[in-house]
Amino acid sequence: MRAVAIVGAAETKFGKLEQSYRELAAAAGRAALADAGARPEDIQALFLGSYSPGTFIHQEHVAPLVAAELGLPHVPATRVENACASGGSAFITACLAVAAGLYDVVLVIGAEKMTATSTEETTQILAEAADWERESAIGLTFPGVFALMAHAYFYRYGYTRDILDAVAIKNHQNALANPYAQFHKAITRDDIARSPLVADPLTLYDCSPISDGAAALVLVAADAAHHFAKPPVRVLGFGQASDSLALFERAELTTLPAAREAANRAYRMAGVSPQDIDVAEVHDCFTIAEIIATEDLGFFAPGEGGAAALAGATSRDGQIPINPSGGLKAKGHPVGATGVGQLAELVFQLRGDAGDRQVEGAEVGLAHNIGGSGATCVVTILAKGDGR
Amino acid sequence: MRAVAIVGAAETKFGKLEQSYRELAAAAGRAALADAGARPEDIQALFLGSYSPGTFIHQEHVAPLVAAELGLPHVPATRVENACASGGSAFITACLAVAAGLYDVVLVIGAEKMTATSTEETTQILAEAADWERESAIGLTFPGVFALMAHAYFYRYGYTRDILDAVAIKNHQNALANPYAQFHKAITRDDIARSPLVADPLTLYDCSPISDGAAALVLVAADAAHHFAKPPVRVLGFGQASDSLALFERAELTTLPAAREAANRAYRMAGVSPQDIDVAEVHDCFTIAEIIATEDLGFFAPGEGGAAALAGATSRDGQIPINPSGGLKAKGHPVGATGVGQLAELVFQLRGDAGDRQVEGAEVGLAHNIGGSGATCVVTILAKGDGR
Repeated sequence: MRAVAIVGAAETKFGKLEQSYRELAAAAGRAALADAGARPEDIQALFLGSYSPGTFIHQEHVAPLVAAELGLPHVPATRVENACASGGSAFITACLAVAAGLYDVVLVIGAEKMTATSTEETTQILAEAADWERESAIGLTFPGVFALMAHAYFYRYGYTRDILDAVAIKNHQNALANPYAQFHKAITRDDIARSPLVADPLTLYDCSPISDGAAALVLVAADAAHHFAKPPVRVLGFGQASDSLALFERAELTTLPAAREAANRAYRMAGVSPQDIDVAEVHDCFTIAEIIATEDLGFFAPGEGGAAALAGATSRDGQIPINPSGGLKAKGHPVGATGVGQLAELVFQLRGDAGDRQVEGAEVGLAHNIGGSGATCVVTILAKGDGR
Repeated sequence: MRAVAIVGAAETKFGKLEQSYRELAAAAGRAALADAGARPEDIQALFLGSYSPGTFIHQEHVAPLVAAELGLPHVPATRVENACASGGSAFITACLAVAAGLYDVVLVIGAEKMTATSTEETTQILAEAADWERESAIGLTFPGVFALMAHAYFYRYGYTRDILDAVAIKNHQNALANPYAQFHKAITRDDIARSPLVADPLTLYDCSPISDGAAALVLVAADAAHHFAKPPVRVLGFGQASDSLALFERAELTTLPAAREAANRAYRMAGVSPQDIDVAEVHDCFTIAEIIATEDLGFFAPGEGGAAALAGATSRDGQIPINPSGGLKAKGHPVGATGVGQLAELVFQLRGDAGDRQVEGAEVGLAHNIGGSGATCVVTILAKGDGR
């Protein structure tokens, strides 16, 4: 396959925003083009990751809508949906299109507008990423799904919710240095102890928020990356894997087999191992998910992710910095944008452009983006430079 | 790019069906595997075209759902959405994945379940494929959109609705020989004259029906096609293009510029011209759309498509057989399945397996799949044999 590089990255702020879906997506796209020093007419295709604009804003067929808004006349524009991994899957799809040789310059956008619906509606819409016929329709929404995982993890490895506190406090702390983050609010164990219970053992501070936002990347054939304005970041490897949507069809709840499989594929393609990763953005839709992710990705052995979080091994200056952006927990989680936003953050980190949240000396970064409770998992590995 | 071939094709019957979305999608997938003589473990990735399962059946994240139902453990499974061109776009995306060299054997499925919602709900859901903020929300649903096109075409070229009658009668006639078709009912000009007006000048028989259904294809690297059971059909070329969703942003209504652009791209990649096409499946969501399609594809000059339809040039034994399957009009239009179903029909035609609807001597076929009112257009050209 032809090598692929990222030459432009951008995000809107995440949060409850005034702008419409098309305004957010176009703003991210324009900013990524500006970052790359590219013009709209350079773009040969658009891939757009978005979860459920049909239910959130009565608008399907969003890819040509956004292409037209950006002034990309007649470019092939394709939406990719894989729940909260829509962004990661759109990115992989775009990589394949460049790798195939059909396009040299491709724009990838992730976008979601989630705050135009009521909280009850939004909860139902999100539950449609789980198995509606077999689980969601009888009331198992995502906080419940991840609460079951947290209980299983506690029971199997002997933890209490201290480990969840450590993740929430770290990610809120990290987000203080991220201008794109939804929350700029340091939290304490006391804050968490006083916060409302959502689904035992998960409290408000264990849950990622409902967010609007968009993120974008400009992908090019690696051998053309030097034509663009910013230092390139190359795509070393990626992997995607699937699993059943319904939890009852899984053998265990303390690991996501599809995440392990996606990570193995990405490590194999990249030719690196977990020890080579300098910084990772992982899918902490709930705090327990970050702990399980650090094990599924091979940073820690099964059952040791909790202790590692407690010991600070995942802080910005720790053994493996996890979610320096603030993660979904504090940066925000506009679901279709999330996977693209993770990669934008890695681009900033690997270029040394991450400001006060910079992980010193980061040369290889990993993104872990999951859909639903892990029925889709996408792992991507990026490295500084164009590899020449 | 590495050459791609189709070695398996299947469709469910289209219509108002008892089966659920996942049952339909899995049935088509299993039948395509059987057609190819392939096993589930041969499949390395799944691409699923589907328009709006989130609104139709409260189920997003359908790609891993269908992968699990088919017993494809941990395969990368990705949904592609581009309104009624979701199937065509999923196919192109899958072609790129094989062309890139990442996968050798890929399953493409298109599926939709549209009859679980009320007619009013279904009409609203379909209108979300147009520009909701700028046109659909004020009442411009798709029959209205295509009625405007029909009036513009009549006015510009001096036709009456006779040309629409010719399309409807031909496609209903063709569907009589298609076991997968929703309607097996020959119609006359009198039937049409007596049918209810939907949006002037379009009557009931000008409109494709609301349908459930699924279709599937097995794609492989062309140089491995001989390992499979059936004679291969190779992918000669494909093109996709976009346009604004809103009609008011278009310069004219008697052509779809994105269809012309997609066709040009496909012809160029395939190295063929309109005169080389032996059979075409085109997107007759409304009868007027078929006439405009035959001009956009270069079969007839602008304004001559109407006369050609009246003269029988598009019948199964005419100059260029259009929609021998019965088309969306009479075969049915389960929107996400349609683009994949068109290609399945071409595979049957090019293998000589199309039974009583066989176009004699067909060696090169073309599919034309549009989303919305042409904001997405996908054109694909297939040829008999593996090209060796």
